[in-house]
Amino acid sequence: MTTPPIIALLTDFGLSDAYVGTMKGVMLALCPAARLVDLTHDVQPQNVRQAAYLLATAYPYFPADTTFLVVVDPGVGTARAPIAVETGHGRYVAPDNGVLSYVLAETGGGRAYALENPAYRLAETSQTFHGRDIFAPAAAHLAAGVLASAFGPALDTLTALPAPRLVIAPGRVDGEVLHIDHFGNLITSIGRLAWDGPETLRFAPRFGVRASAPETLRAGACEVLIGGRTIGPIRPTYGAVPPGALTALIGSAGQLEIGINQGHAASALGAAIGDPVTLVWA
Amino acid sequence: MTTPPIIALLTDFGLSDAYVGTMKGVMLALCPAARLVDLTHDVQPQNVRQAAYLLATAYPYFPADTTFLVVVDPGVGTARAPIAVETGHGRYVAPDNGVLSYVLAETGGGRAYALENPAYRLAETSQTFHGRDIFAPAAAHLAAGVLASAFGPALDTLTALPAPRLVIAPGRVDGEVLHIDHFGNLITSIGRLAWDGPETLRFAPRFGVRASAPETLRAGACEVLIGGRTIGPIRPTYGAVPPGALTALIGSAGQLEIGINQGHAASALGAAIGDPVTLVWA
Amino acid sequence: MTTPPIIALLTDFGLSDAYVGTMKGVMLALCPAARLVDLTHDVQPQNVRQAAYLLATAYPYFPADTTFLVVVDPGVGTARAPIAVETGHGRYVAPDNGVLSYVLAETGGGRAYALENPAYRLAETSQTFHGRDIFAPAAAHLAAGVLASAFGPALDTLTALPAPRLVIAPGRVDGEVLHIDHFGNLITSIGRLAWDGPETLRFAPRFGVRASAPETLRAGACEVLIGGRTIGPIRPTYGAVPPGALTALIGSAGQLEIGINQGHAASALGAAIGDPVTLVWA
Repeated sequence: MTTPPIIALLTDFGLSDAYVGTMKGVMLALCPAARLVDLTHDVQPQNVRQAAYLLATAYPYFPADTTFLVVVDPGVGTARAPIAVETGHGRYVAPDNGVLSYVLAETGGGRAYALENPAYRLAETSQTFHGRDIFAPAAAHLAAGVLASAFGPALDTLTALPAPRLVIAPGRVDGEVLHIDHFGNLITSIGRLAWDGPETLRFAPRFGVRASAPETLRAGACEVLIGGRTIGPIRPTYGAVPPGALTALIGSAGQLEIGINQGHAASALGAAIGDPVTLVWA
Repeated sequence: MTTPPIIALLTDFGLSDAYVGTMKGVMLALCPAARLVDLTHDVQPQNVRQAAYLLATAYPYFPADTTFLVVVDPGVGTARAPIAVETGHGRYVAPDNGVLSYVLAETGGGRAYALENPAYRLAETSQTFHGRDIFAPAAAHLAAGVLASAFGPALDTLTALPAPRLVIAPGRVDGEVLHIDHFGNLITSIGRLAWDGPETLRFAPRFGVRASAPETLRAGACEVLIGGRTIGPIRPTYGAVPPGALTALIGSAGQLEIGINQGHAASALGAAIGDPVTLVWA
Repeated sequence: MTTPPIIALLTDFGLSDAYVGTMKGVMLALCPAARLVDLTHDVQPQNVRQAAYLLATAYPYFPADTTFLVVVDPGVGTARAPIAVETGHGRYVAPDNGVLSYVLAETGGGRAYALENPAYRLAETSQTFHGRDIFAPAAAHLAAGVLASAFGPALDTLTALPAPRLVIAPGRVDGEVLHIDHFGNLITSIGRLAWDGPETLRFAPRFGVRASAPETLRAGACEVLIGGRTIGPIRPTYGAVPPGALTALIGSAGQLEIGINQGHAASALGAAIGDPVTLVWA
């Protein structure tokens, strides 16, 4: 028995309409064996960058032959191309608006094709719901074994997002809040960090940020700053501080994260996506 | 290998309890091969009409042998009958409260049966959760191959919702807001519209509304009005106006829709479900 | 053909991040045949007791060989053990913080093992996301046929939650609000009640509460009190009172429930989880 193909969905459609369910109907009609997994549908409306971050943190945990359907598409109905990209880890169907930038920086790029072949779209194509009419059919055909090259011409250059803010200087790294999660934790652009005890913290930029070389710094001797406030050093877990206390730590995606043990840091700090965060050490 | 049966769920249960998950447990116990797809569970509590609209826009995109489980049921525990209906496109399990009206108007009706046979209910039936005890088992048995006629007596007449407001006069159509989606777009009862360029807009009433004949009008020469405000003509896409601007267009279900490019029209207009909308042309 | 294994998920992760989707990717990579069902991901952050209640109401409706993945884990990264428990109805993967208490009280306990064997964790284990790195892999391996005893040493005692408040005296039962559902209904610790008409209401404590013996009382002659307010007797359905009226009834889990027919009782009463509720009869 072969393993059923997986299609993972990431959109800003929310779950209060039948939009996501309708795309699933389209996909199961074309690829009945597909296993459909929701990453999230609660990306802020049209926030391409947040979607790029969430996708980049999730894709490594799926099998390498997973198809990712990503529809965060402020330009629906305009000239931006719908695309499919084959990479060393995952196949991606999305609008060409940069939403795949962070993944492609980590997979070393991929082969991209425009979704032009009408044989792989629904017979009727609306102006407002390409998720249903163009993207979902492409994802289902990919999952069913169609090669991306069948969809249309190869594309040499794709739209890229600016890399997240990350300025590295001796003894100091400046970054920004990239995402605020359900628990109110602030996930930053400072990473990729690996904890080897309080004396050694390895640091390697990602998401396409270039830097001279991975650095090593002392977690216990550094300070995290946000909004004029000193959070303290990087600690190993939330449980290292009492309930209600602010702390910095390395989040599950390897990024510097600011949170409150059993509390909601974003509310307590009045923080928002894009806020500057600084890491300093002696 | 046969195609696994699909059961699509539409309820007002929300996702913050385990109600939907419990129904899925019931269904997988009875039909382990079933593929379960959520349309939405965020129908406004007990809003039968909104559910009817959402179901009517989604069902055509599923395979014709899909089973739809629809539980928006203000009368749970009272005399309204639980029913199963077989149509030319889909089998439906729902309370007999009109929630299937709009679908049945489009599929040309169907054969309806009361869910009375205790062999197809759970052994214990609560007074408050027929979704779990009566509807979900019926959907699972249908998906597993049981004929609806096994559930109970045939029903000749079903409860019907009033058709959405749609008054057609020379040079003018009056309708109403049927649904507000996650993006704040107002979806109206004016349709079904098909765009063939700014000079020709075909118009055909649906959801059981009767009219003399399909009409053709000029999209570029018409005006859309809501709440004393002129929105302008029907345009081909949201991108046809600048970000932040109001526009009218044909939504993905073929209905007249009012929205803001990359904004939230319902908030900007203070609009609600049921508000009157008018389309006029010379 | 064998029945595909089911994994049912219950967390406080919400759906606005990719956390739940990432766990699903991990599980499908390890157990491609698994059927994944969401119970809910909207448990109040770190509310172990609410999760225990929701799990206890849902598990009986799943097949007995279902694997339940329960991640409500205020102590992530601290010393609390991750565990797997095999019972007569379901296998459970969770932190050892009491979240399984109410289920274990009903299944008559189970055999528990610590999740220590690194062969059944992801290769890299973060300090903040044991759901992805430890719990999801264990659930997938269980669903794929690994015995819980392979995970690590047997545990003789598990952390237990205090039983919900339930004080039984002649003519009077005192309990509390355990959960407020999506419709605003208040579900209480007073149960398990079975309705056999207005003259006989059988009563049997659950969730580990001990009492002398099941009691029988007259539903039509009792009064339900909350916040100094008299709700009236227990009625058979919401439809037994007019729309907008408060009533008490037996909810779908067999617990005393206070609600408003087609309304939102929690808002109307200003009630919260933990509020005292009293049932008195002559």
